Amino acid sequence: MIESWQSFDDPDVNLSMYRFAERLWPICRSLTGEGVRETLHLIRERLPDLAIHEVPSGTRCFDWQVPNEWNIRDAYLIGPDGEKVVEFRNNNLHVVGYSEPVDRMMSLEELRPHLFSLPDQPDAIPYVTSYYKRFFGFCLSHRQLQSLKEGTYRVVIDSTLQPGSLTYADLVLPGRTEKEVFLSTYVCHPSLANNELSGPVVTVALAQWLMSQKDRRYTYRIYFGPETIGAIVYLSRHLDHLKRQVLAGYVVTCVGDDRAFSLLSSRYGDTMVDRLTSRVLTEVVGEFKRYSFLQRGSDERQYGSPGVDLPMVSVMRTRYGSYPEYHTSLDDLSIISPAGLGGALKVLKSCLTALEWNQTYRVAQPCEPQLGKRGLYPTISTKASGISVRQMMDVLAYSDGRNDLLRISEIIGVPLLDVARIIRPLIEAGVVVEV
Amino acid sequence: MIESWQSFDDPDVNLSMYRFAERLWPICRSLTGEGVRETLHLIRERLPDLAIHEVPSGTRCFDWQVPNEWNIRDAYLIGPDGEKVVEFRNNNLHVVGYSEPVDRMMSLEELRPHLFSLPDQPDAIPYVTSYYKRFFGFCLSHRQLQSLKEGTYRVVIDSTLQPGSLTYADLVLPGRTEKEVFLSTYVCHPSLANNELSGPVVTVALAQWLMSQKDRRYTYRIYFGPETIGAIVYLSRHLDHLKRQVLAGYVVTCVGDDRAFSLLSSRYGDTMVDRLTSRVLTEVVGEFKRYSFLQRGSDERQYGSPGVDLPMVSVMRTRYGSYPEYHTSLDDLSIISPAGLGGALKVLKSCLTALEWNQTYRVAQPCEPQLGKRGLYPTISTKASGISVRQMMDVLAYSDGRNDLLRISEIIGVPLLDVARIIRPLIEAGVVVEV
Amino acid sequence: MIESWQSFDDPDVNLSMYRFAERLWPICRSLTGEGVRETLHLIRERLPDLAIHEVPSGTRCFDWQVPNEWNIRDAYLIGPDGEKVVEFRNNNLHVVGYSEPVDRMMSLEELRPHLFSLPDQPDAIPYVTSYYKRFFGFCLSHRQLQSLKEGTYRVVIDSTLQPGSLTYADLVLPGRTEKEVFLSTYVCHPSLANNELSGPVVTVALAQWLMSQKDRRYTYRIYFGPETIGAIVYLSRHLDHLKRQVLAGYVVTCVGDDRAFSLLSSRYGDTMVDRLTSRVLTEVVGEFKRYSFLQRGSDERQYGSPGVDLPMVSVMRTRYGSYPEYHTSLDDLSIISPAGLGGALKVLKSCLTALEWNQTYRVAQPCEPQLGKRGLYPTISTKASGISVRQMMDVLAYSDGRNDLLRISEIIGVPLLDVARIIRPLIEAGVVVEV
Repeated sequence: MIESWQSFDDPDVNLSMYRFAERLWPICRSLTGEGVRETLHLIRERLPDLAIHEVPSGTRCFDWQVPNEWNIRDAYLIGPDGEKVVEFRNNNLHVVGYSEPVDRMMSLEELRPHLFSLPDQPDAIPYVTSYYKRFFGFCLSHRQLQSLKEGTYRVVIDSTLQPGSLTYADLVLPGRTEKEVFLSTYVCHPSLANNELSGPVVTVALAQWLMSQKDRRYTYRIYFGPETIGAIVYLSRHLDHLKRQVLAGYVVTCVGDDRAFSLLSSRYGDTMVDRLTSRVLTEVVGEFKRYSFLQRGSDERQYGSPGVDLPMVSVMRTRYGSYPEYHTSLDDLSIISPAGLGGALKVLKSCLTALEWNQTYRVAQPCEPQLGKRGLYPTISTKASGISVRQMMDVLAYSDGRNDLLRISEIIGVPLLDVARIIRPLIEAGVVVEV
Repeated sequence: MIESWQSFDDPDVNLSMYRFAERLWPICRSLTGEGVRETLHLIRERLPDLAIHEVPSGTRCFDWQVPNEWNIRDAYLIGPDGEKVVEFRNNNLHVVGYSEPVDRMMSLEELRPHLFSLPDQPDAIPYVTSYYKRFFGFCLSHRQLQSLKEGTYRVVIDSTLQPGSLTYADLVLPGRTEKEVFLSTYVCHPSLANNELSGPVVTVALAQWLMSQKDRRYTYRIYFGPETIGAIVYLSRHLDHLKRQVLAGYVVTCVGDDRAFSLLSSRYGDTMVDRLTSRVLTEVVGEFKRYSFLQRGSDERQYGSPGVDLPMVSVMRTRYGSYPEYHTSLDDLSIISPAGLGGALKVLKSCLTALEWNQTYRVAQPCEPQLGKRGLYPTISTKASGISVRQMMDVLAYSDGRNDLLRISEIIGVPLLDVARIIRPLIEAGVVVEV
Repeated sequence: MIESWQSFDDPDVNLSMYRFAERLWPICRSLTGEGVRETLHLIRERLPDLAIHEVPSGTRCFDWQVPNEWNIRDAYLIGPDGEKVVEFRNNNLHVVGYSEPVDRMMSLEELRPHLFSLPDQPDAIPYVTSYYKRFFGFCLSHRQLQSLKEGTYRVVIDSTLQPGSLTYADLVLPGRTEKEVFLSTYVCHPSLANNELSGPVVTVALAQWLMSQKDRRYTYRIYFGPETIGAIVYLSRHLDHLKRQVLAGYVVTCVGDDRAFSLLSSRYGDTMVDRLTSRVLTEVVGEFKRYSFLQRGSDERQYGSPGVDLPMVSVMRTRYGSYPEYHTSLDDLSIISPAGLGGALKVLKSCLTALEWNQTYRVAQPCEPQLGKRGLYPTISTKASGISVRQMMDVLAYSDGRNDLLRISEIIGVPLLDVARIIRPLIEAGVVVEV
């Protein structure tokens, strides 16, 4: 069982996550294409056992089909004065994702339906995509849009949109049992930081930490790939296995800023991982924001859909859609921080440790055990942890084969990881046995 | 399935209900007798398939027996001055229901235990009956009682109370399935308006509306007859069938005034029809008064009794016992109105429509469906109804075979009839299937 | 069924309980030894069928062993001046319970770790024991401790701590059924009044009252013995029987003062006896203090432990640990009173009566019964009790085979013992039958 519960916070790791985000920042990711591939290869440098998969365009997955592969070399607008006024190389958000190739002269009037800006955030370039409808477009700040002169523009998008493949990766870390904890994050957003370089970056660190554990009770399965269609592809390939084995899962997204913690619950909010994560968040960070499944917006939409029904929640810092920089060029590396990434990593480590310990026990004999003769009284009561004999007796009273440690923690009002520390010597002394 | 959800309000229908109440007003109804027969024949003029049944006096029904038939031709008191001081022909409330025949000279003192008035409402004639204990009596305003002179009175009640029969009627409107919705109202009150001409009058209009529906999912069974003993007779004849087939029912009573809406719940308040009706009332009328089964007072006493256990509620405007004119001559045609009757009719139509749509669905494939390729996005989002893509996705997320539309409506916070409108194209597109 | 519900309060009985407490007061009780034996013999004078049992030291019981028997003849400290400064004969709290024999000269410094006082209550002698670790010690008031002179003391404890036996007693009062109500109280505390002479004294009176009942539905099993190890011994001998037969039980402790009523619930607080006792307390005494199982401290620790799982609660006046005199010489006979003991006895009589009546009924026929023809209307409505026809109809409405009288009482808001009085004539008339 994971036992490193004293070392959930490591400033070196936090800084190294931020450095990795900086490294990934300039790459132009989308649903498919070279940007995704390059990103996954950089992740594989850190997780050598990562398996990278290619799925041909056109492959059917449930109600969907894998779209064509999109790649882009360059894109720009040349204005009436012959000057490049919008240039992909300056910011890859300038091009609508999945824009088809174009090289055409257009008047500003013709061009307008292809230009996107945000009047309320005049300095921000919006993030826009058109995955399933052929289209092309440019995104720019509203200030720049307003400065465009009437006249004829040369519109160039040097992209390809043609059969190829969708790329995703997964990593399976075996444990003592085949029961799985599933972690999912996505790598399809171009230069955007909290949503979504933070997810892959924290998930890599979490995977490295898992790999360093001597004894894992559970098997850990980790998915890196494009959002929505990638998750659907993954589910279409592994659904039966996942439904059978996954006992808990996390969508790791928007975990980089330092403004809040958030939990988005499963479809009914009533699974063990909902309750466990809520409790761990309360214990580790205190206040946090709760979102119901009605406020979902990422891959929990697929993992939590009817027929899939995986018990998964999303742990976040500030949720997508809930911060002003969301889906604009303002969601840059200044929004995230080592402390922001580190806070999310600490919560996720705490959750996975709690999950491993969250078993059901029963006392071996009727009546209260005689703790004195086993030397368990003094050992415990002098611990700096503040664990008291009363807490130990309460853990025993509810170790009746009906409650997992989470439920015991809720009943007796003692933090879940403390309950794990209390039960450990009782297991070793044979006073309680796992059910 | 009933689909006329745009036309729940029809001023012509409302006026015609009121006119029918005026037509029924003067008839002297009681548990049994010609008044009930005449009322049921007038109803049959509007519902030609109505079946009228006679049940002989003395017939056993569970713990009860059908009482003798009561008819009355005339009744009056002649005072010491030779003047008719109380006269049945002026108001049929003047005679205690089921009064045995009498023609006798009595002093005012002897007469007093047979005279009923309401000191707190000195101008109202109370409504009094003595169905199961032989008795005779007169009801009069307290003002009139106080003006009676000492002396000898001639007391005449020209009634018959002898073996005959109890009369009730029912109408069965077949639907696509044998599952039934049961509507029950009663016709045993003499000239009283809200309680109870409103019930039969609204139920007739509701039956006519049901008959006009092209496609009924459910079979509708409608009962018109005397309260309590009539319901007991009906149950004794149909109990097994009703227990097997009735999935929801309504007692229609006190549905004529325009002061309130009320819902009286089933014995435990936990049936589908309790929840559905509560939700529909909230959506259609907003605020309404809730009564528990402990405040029951009409035929739900029988339908909800142990061993009967029909899932039925009472939808009312102002409940019996809760308005000052209740069970007095003041509950006259001025208390009810076309708008009052119409409001109740609208709620009941909404409830029955909601019932028909309230099925359980599941999505046909795992993961979110690709709505774009089916043209369901724009169709929906431009509807004047304000139904959004988000609402459609939420309906799909909870169409998992666990929830009827009512539950989905509760979970996602969208009106139940809107959920029905959202799911309809999804059924047609094969995206969801009925469970 | 117990029917004496009019005579729950008897001043003579209350006074006689107090007199019995005075009689038991001077005896030096402990886990084992002559004090326990003498106490049980005095109880047997009042309950002739009481069976007294001896269990040899060393007997194994689950995780425990019966300790050696402890007896004490005398104990004292002789100070540097040759004066007896602490003397067991003055107060048997002066010696730490289970002190091993000693006769030794010790300096005050050596002696200090063996002296116990309460700085915050300088006039109180604390109550201290050391059952499972060999030790000796004296308890004294802090004022006295501070007055002890430096110098050499003669330390004498004339005790024996050697193989013998543990003594307990039980009484079984058979009823019409083999289902049992279990009452448990303990006799191991030396001169302490509320905790714990009150428990045995009230339990004796309760047993006498039970013996006086003509018709007991249930069998009553009553345990008197040492706390903790005695309960564990009793459970180790009777566990299977108790798990099979006990439908409700009470730990009777701290029932002598007149400051409060308290209820400590079972492990989950959800058994019938939890709900019933809570309701009876509300009806009989109004406000009372509720404690969860997390605040347990007496033999419910064993009866409610996993694997034992007896449905038991503790009814108390002021709970152990919750009053300033607790476990000190101040918990003397001035703390308890006839009224205090009597209040607890009244509550326990009410609970046992309610338990006997708390069966499940169903009406014999569908629909409401015709009460008039059975003369049940007037009989009822004129009762001084204020029981109304409405209450009778409500009891009938929920006599559907799903609810015990407790649940009906909760649903209809009528006191439980009133519901018993309402249902009694309905049972006799055959209108309801027991399920």
